[in-house]
Parts: sequence; C-alpha cells; structure tokens
Amino acid sequence: MASLHGDDYQGELRANFSSNVWHEADNTDMYNHLCNLFAKTRRYPETEAESLKMTLAEIYRIESSHISIGNGSIDIIYRIAQSYRGKKSIIVSPTFSEYSRACEINEHTIKLCSREDIMVEIDKFQPDMVWLCNPNNPDGTCFDRKELQAILYTYPLVTFIIDQSFLDFTMQETLTANSVLEFTNLILIYSLTKRYSIPGLRIGYVIAPKTIIYKLDCFKIPWSVNTLAIEAGKYVISQKDSSFDLKTWLTESIRFQKEINRIDIFEALSSHTPFFLVKLRKGRAADLKAFLLKEGILIRDASGFYNNKVQMIRLNTLSINQNNLLIERMNAWKQSLSR
Amino acid sequence: MASLHGDDYQGELRANFSSNVWHEADNTDMYNHLCNLFAKTRRYPETEAESLKMTLAEIYRIESSHISIGNGSIDIIYRIAQSYRGKKSIIVSPTFSEYSRACEINEHTIKLCSREDIMVEIDKFQPDMVWLCNPNNPDGTCFDRKELQAILYTYPLVTFIIDQSFLDFTMQETLTANSVLEFTNLILIYSLTKRYSIPGLRIGYVIAPKTIIYKLDCFKIPWSVNTLAIEAGKYVISQKDSSFDLKTWLTESIRFQKEINRIDIFEALSSHTPFFLVKLRKGRAADLKAFLLKEGILIRDASGFYNNKVQMIRLNTLSINQNNLLIERMNAWKQSLSR
Repeated sequence: MASLHGDDYQGELRANFSSNVWHEADNTDMYNHLCNLFAKTRRYPETEAESLKMTLAEIYRIESSHISIGNGSIDIIYRIAQSYRGKKSIIVSPTFSEYSRACEINEHTIKLCSREDIMVEIDKFQPDMVWLCNPNNPDGTCFDRKELQAILYTYPLVTFIIDQSFLDFTMQETLTANSVLEFTNLILIYSLTKRYSIPGLRIGYVIAPKTIIYKLDCFKIPWSVNTLAIEAGKYVISQKDSSFDLKTWLTESIRFQKEINRIDIFEALSSHTPFFLVKLRKGRAADLKAFLLKEGILIRDASGFYNNKVQMIRLNTLSINQNNLLIERMNAWKQSLSR
Repeated sequence: MASLHGDDYQGELRANFSSNVWHEADNTDMYNHLCNLFAKTRRYPETEAESLKMTLAEIYRIESSHISIGNGSIDIIYRIAQSYRGKKSIIVSPTFSEYSRACEINEHTIKLCSREDIMVEIDKFQPDMVWLCNPNNPDGTCFDRKELQAILYTYPLVTFIIDQSFLDFTMQETLTANSVLEFTNLILIYSLTKRYSIPGLRIGYVIAPKTIIYKLDCFKIPWSVNTLAIEAGKYVISQKDSSFDLKTWLTESIRFQKEINRIDIFEALSSHTPFFLVKLRKGRAADLKAFLLKEGILIRDASGFYNNKVQMIRLNTLSINQNNLLIERMNAWKQSLSR
C-alpha cells in the first residue's frame, strides 16, 4: 500500500525529495536560540500560545482575536472539521488526504470535485463549506487572488477553508490575511513549518473572522503548542531569513522539470511551486521509490492521490547537485526496466 | 475570575507552588542531548511517535498496540471524550476541569460525583464511562489498587478512564499497566511531564485494551507529538534520574503542612502526594494569590474546584527554603488581614 504522506522513512538520507519544505534554510541561529531556552520547558506553555499570536497580529496588522494557533496546520484542519461537525463539505481534489479524513471522523457529507468544476459543483451540491489547498498539494497549482475573490463573493453563504500552507512557494498572488475582514465566509490556514524548514516542530495557525475564531477556540485543547515551538515560531517570523530565494528556486525547478521530461517515460506536470508531479508512462511509482530509497533518495509515491489509476510521483526541487543526482538515478531506473 | 489552571503567570518567579511537577529534576543532560538533535526538526516527526511507543512497550513489557502517544495527557483526555462521543459519563469530583470540558464539547451527558459515592452513583446513573484522576488533582487523594480492582470487577460494562498522571507522586499502590490485559473496561492515562519536569514539552500516553486503542487512534491527528518531545520522552524514560526521591519529598511535605496548620487561618488537607489543598478560614484565596505574586511567588487558587463556595489554595511542596519562605509570607498575609 502506498503511504498516505511524504517523509515516510525515518533513516538518514542523501536527498529527501518527498516533503515540500524549503531545503536550504539555515536554522543554526534559531537552534542556538532555542538551546538557551530549555529551562522554560519546566513550566507549562502558554495555554493558547498567546505571545506567538500577538507577534503574528502585529505582523499582519490584524487583531489577535482573528487568529488561533495550532499544533501544526493539521491541528487547525481537524479543529475546523470538528467545529463544523456534520456539515456538507466539498473538497477540491486531488489534494492533501487529511481534509477528507478530518471531515469523515466528524461526519461531514463529503463531495470531491476538481479545481475546474468548483462553481458547477457548489451550485449542484449546495455545500456548507469548501476545502481548497492553494497552492495545492500535490500538484502545486494555484488559483490567483482575483479568481478566489470572485468565488468568495459569489457564494457568501458557503464557508471557504483555504489552506495557504504553501503560500510562500508561489509567485501567484494569493489571498492576504486581511481578506478575512472583507469576507465573513473565509478561513485561511497557514503553516510556519514549510517555509522555515521546521516540520518537526509543528506550528500552524488560522486567520478568520472573529466569530469563526471564537467557534474554533471552543474546540481548542489547552497547551497544544509546546514551548519550543512557540519560541521557534516567534523567532523565525521576526528574523529576516536571507537564504530564501523563491525566484532562483523556481528557476531551478523549471530546469529540473525539463531534464526530467527528457527521459521519455516521465512527464513533469506544470506547477506554480517548486514541488510538482511527475507522471510515469512506464513502470510503477512504488518500484521507482524503492529503487531510489536503496540509494538514500526519498521521493513521494503520489499515485494514491489518483486512486492508483495513474502512476505518479511528487518531487520537491532541491539543490542543483541533488536534482542532477535524481535525474541520473531516474535514468538508471529506466534502463533497468528495459533489461 | 479564578484561572482554570495553575502556572498561569508567565513571568519570572522566585517560587512556583502552582503546578504539580517534580521541582528538583536536573534536566541539563537531556537539554544537551536535545540540542544535538535540532537538525531532526527539518523533517516531519514520526506520524504516531512510533519509536517512543516502542520504548514504552519494552519498559512495560506490553505490546505496542496497547499504547497511543499524545501531545500531553490532555490530548489523550480529549481524544477519549471524542471517541466516546455522546456517552453518559460520571466524573469523580472535584477534579481537573478538563475532563468536564472534553466531555461537554463532545456532548456527553455528565454527572459529577464524589469519591465516596462512586458505586452508589454508578448504580443510580448507569453511566457508559467513569473518569477518575488517581492520585487526584487537586487534593492528592488516591484510591489504592485493590479498591480500584474491586470497582473494575463489579462494573464490567462501564469503561473506567483512570488518569494516573501523578502516579509517581504517591506511595499508594496504583494500577499497573498490564491491568489492561485483565480488565477490558480500563483506560489508563499517563504523563511524562510531571515526574520529569518537562510540562513545556507536552508528552502523555494512554495504555488500554487493543480494541480501545484502535478506536482512539481513529481520532488521532498525525504528527501530533513534535520531534523534540518524542526524543525527550525516550531520553527521560531510558535514563536513571537519581534526583527523584519521593520519600524525602513526602516527608518535607508533611513538615510543610504542619507548619501551615500552625497559622490558625489555614488548614492543610491530608493528601497522598506532595501537592495538597489548603483551606482558608479567613480572607480570599484570590487576594492571597495576588499578595504572593507581588513577591514572585505563584500559588494555585483552587476555590474554583469548589464553585467558589470555599476558599482554597493548592500548593506543591518545593525545597525547604522555598517552603519556609511561603510560610513566612502566608503569616505576613494573615497579619495584613487583621490590620
């Protein structure tokens, strides 16, 4: 069975293409900062991660009552599904599998629909809410701000949950935080762990109209964000991280995709982010994954996003050397198929 | 309004009597260990904290399918309430307020009952489940193993959730982990943060019959325990911590309580743990708390446990010097009342 998620191998790796995080983040200063704060763990964390919430409120110039902090954005996703228990949900698919699971365990009636058919399906299914990952995982496609505003405006009675966890990974204009002042039907999910390369620490947040945050906080578990995660969050958003260069990353991604497309059994699908899907015209994604893992390279078998009807992998763009290594090994795998 | 929990002041303190953790734990080695592991936070944590689960399984000599790990024991409490949504719950009170909140948001029918009346109330109310904190927060009282076994045996169709977070703080014999092999109606909650003085890191777990763990895991959020918490958990349970000396701690607690009782407006209530309640015969707990906080001393106003019908504080026993400091300041507060 294909794994549900990337980064599903805990051992040492030469190159990890399987998870969508900024791979060149230099967090040494943050690590040193946290090392000096361990004594804080002798006490309980702030119940609601208040100091991180205040820092975010200042940065976004929005009242803190528009924000709730979570133990990763996944915590926010489950909390939303729980707060709207039993509702009718459209999930724009293929996408991150946890929206479905969160809705299922909270007894939503679920309808999956493609990105192209959102408005048609809303008219037909009359949902209470629509879940949309933007930019989308796994394919990196991204609606731009104006398209989303038009949809939000057209359906004021439908609540749109827009997961912007990969916001920093696209040049497309996405919705700004203060959109929640304009649209009472909008919930925005954010993650700090992708852009800052700290998925192990678990920090996400939600920005929404105050009444919605109030509702979500009725289901919040106290002390859910640990002390070091709170401190890491405040640190990364307050520091200028000069390592992050999206333009260069995307340029390398285009080169990487072109090189992959030169291997005739692979087809890289267009993406607005440095992570993207690759379709296999021959062979099985699970076999390619196993072949590469033997050499310390981890990729995401993404066939599960398509009910295994197509063979698909998802790749993040890493350094030039790592990308070239992968291309070389993908070529070698192709050769092994024809033997 | 009284706070819902202790440790409700984030500033620097001279002495923190408000939270029930082992105050003399020396975690320097663990901090150093974690400092060397920060690079691990570039990757996702194990989805289900598997390595910590395996370590616990070895220590308890029980299959890992009897265990689920949580983001603090609070995460376990909420997950149980959610898994048994809409059931009839008896909560043995006064106790930690989060059992009630967890049951409320998951639409349980709740009946509070005193420790003395458990069996009478079970017969009368016919609950699906009974929540019991043992040793109990806030008063430190503790049923012993035989009493609990008798209750478990008498009501095989009632599920008992026994929160043993303060297990290490009593000489009473409590239920062992392998009791879940004998009793299919038993769920045991554990915390690593009290005994090892790491409440800021959030690690708890539940041991239960396999079918119950399966049910609880249907509601588990992936990656809910962060990488550093997993590593800290494995570290503390694998190391011998020579600082922990319960007998000496309890002896000092008895002395501390006797000294408090010499101040005629206070009455320390008997406890099986180093934390205990103190009843005020005069003055308000909130005023005493405010008076002490000005001097950098934090106590828990516990009146809320009794719907504010009695004035009560909860104290943890700290070092001799800190305890003496508190006695001196409680005396000073008493003097200030008669002025």
